Amino acid sequence: MSERIYTAGLVVIGDEILSGRTHDRNIAQVASWLQVQGIRLAEVRVVPDVIERIVEAVDALRTANDYLFTTGGIGPTHDDITVDAIAAALGVPVVIHPQARAILERYYADKGGLTEGRLRMARVPEGAELIPNRMSGAPGIAIGNIRMMAGVPHIAAQMLDSLTGTLEGGAPLLSETVGGYIPESEVAVLLREVEKAHENCQIGSYPFFREGRVGANFVIRSTDADALQSCLHTLCEGLGELGFDFTPGGI
Amino acid sequence: MSERIYTAGLVVIGDEILSGRTHDRNIAQVASWLQVQGIRLAEVRVVPDVIERIVEAVDALRTANDYLFTTGGIGPTHDDITVDAIAAALGVPVVIHPQARAILERYYADKGGLTEGRLRMARVPEGAELIPNRMSGAPGIAIGNIRMMAGVPHIAAQMLDSLTGTLEGGAPLLSETVGGYIPESEVAVLLREVEKAHENCQIGSYPFFREGRVGANFVIRSTDADALQSCLHTLCEGLGELGFDFTPGGI
Repeated sequence: MSERIYTAGLVVIGDEILSGRTHDRNIAQVASWLQVQGIRLAEVRVVPDVIERIVEAVDALRTANDYLFTTGGIGPTHDDITVDAIAAALGVPVVIHPQARAILERYYADKGGLTEGRLRMARVPEGAELIPNRMSGAPGIAIGNIRMMAGVPHIAAQMLDSLTGTLEGGAPLLSETVGGYIPESEVAVLLREVEKAHENCQIGSYPFFREGRVGANFVIRSTDADALQSCLHTLCEGLGELGFDFTPGGI
Repeated sequence: MSERIYTAGLVVIGDEILSGRTHDRNIAQVASWLQVQGIRLAEVRVVPDVIERIVEAVDALRTANDYLFTTGGIGPTHDDITVDAIAAALGVPVVIHPQARAILERYYADKGGLTEGRLRMARVPEGAELIPNRMSGAPGIAIGNIRMMAGVPHIAAQMLDSLTGTLEGGAPLLSETVGGYIPESEVAVLLREVEKAHENCQIGSYPFFREGRVGANFVIRSTDADALQSCLHTLCEGLGELGFDFTPGGI
């Protein structure tokens, strides 16, 4: 198993997210999916439907990471320009993918046929492959380390499902959680000291307010199973010494 | 009224968003709030709890925009490093804000007093002012064109509320919506042509699938009220000519 941690960037494309009209749900689903693949989501950028802005974000994140995912902007309308932006970033022309065209022809055969708008969804940067999509006709697009997905969350989910297990990943990130009705401000020093004492571990603190009481879950993350268990042990010991009740697995 | 469009960037800080554990709700609420202020959200970046990564994102977006908002990383624990990152980006030291300290002392007077962790929440970049927060003791922080807010969405909402009307904004962005059970692929050409014919207008297309039928809402945005109405008129005419029923205001 490789020790290297693979990373991914995500570019969310769409004026509708930046205007507040649509609440993004792709960041969370891409993040959760990557976590399970053993790939760490390193950064997300949300950019408008402006080709230069998409190119800039795509270039920054595709070179800084092992993978780059995009959501949005691959539909049939004139404001769907993700394919053009990726082609520009890679310096390749946009072409009609024959298999994508065939898929769309079949899908729209009894729905009025392939209009000019619909044919746009067969456009890909030259050299790209398709990401199957069982929900609607239009496929996602894979080229190099880039994976372009739909903006509609349940279609993006289908495309992620098609990609499961296809990416070379790093060591899975392991985690342990412990939680309790513990005000995080009373254990801030403990958390910092425990994290400092366990080099390969990261401790996140997630406060909550339930039934009139404050509390927090503490999540330790590491790719090293032994370090993780040692860190968990030290943290639980520390919480006990401070007189707090805690629940393994979190509450 | 100024013709200039004011823009803002948003940096969302938190490993918990990138790991998929927490679903971000601040992007949508900051976006909607800015829209009402007449300020356009130009870009969002989600970055991990790593000081260099926060500094990089903050520097990129504070110089490219009129305003920069941040959410997350201003709590009591060791992984709350937003203040340190902003101070580093601005080249100023971190100091204890006397008024913030007084607020926290009052707030925690009957809750065990001001611990080392809690006092962290009074730390600000030198020269900063406070953003009031009625929900919990800890205030947000304003310095230059930067506004630092809590990561917990209902506390961030309180801070946004405190900021309402305090920012110099541009012309309010106006919008008109028209929608119908119209497959967007059948009007893609119309949308592009109408947008092209109305220079100061932008048309977004937002497809949906309801009760077994596809449809879409088309949102025209402009800071120019006359251009907006003219664009709306042309779009409705075009939809009618294609034989579609449509509903003003969207469905």
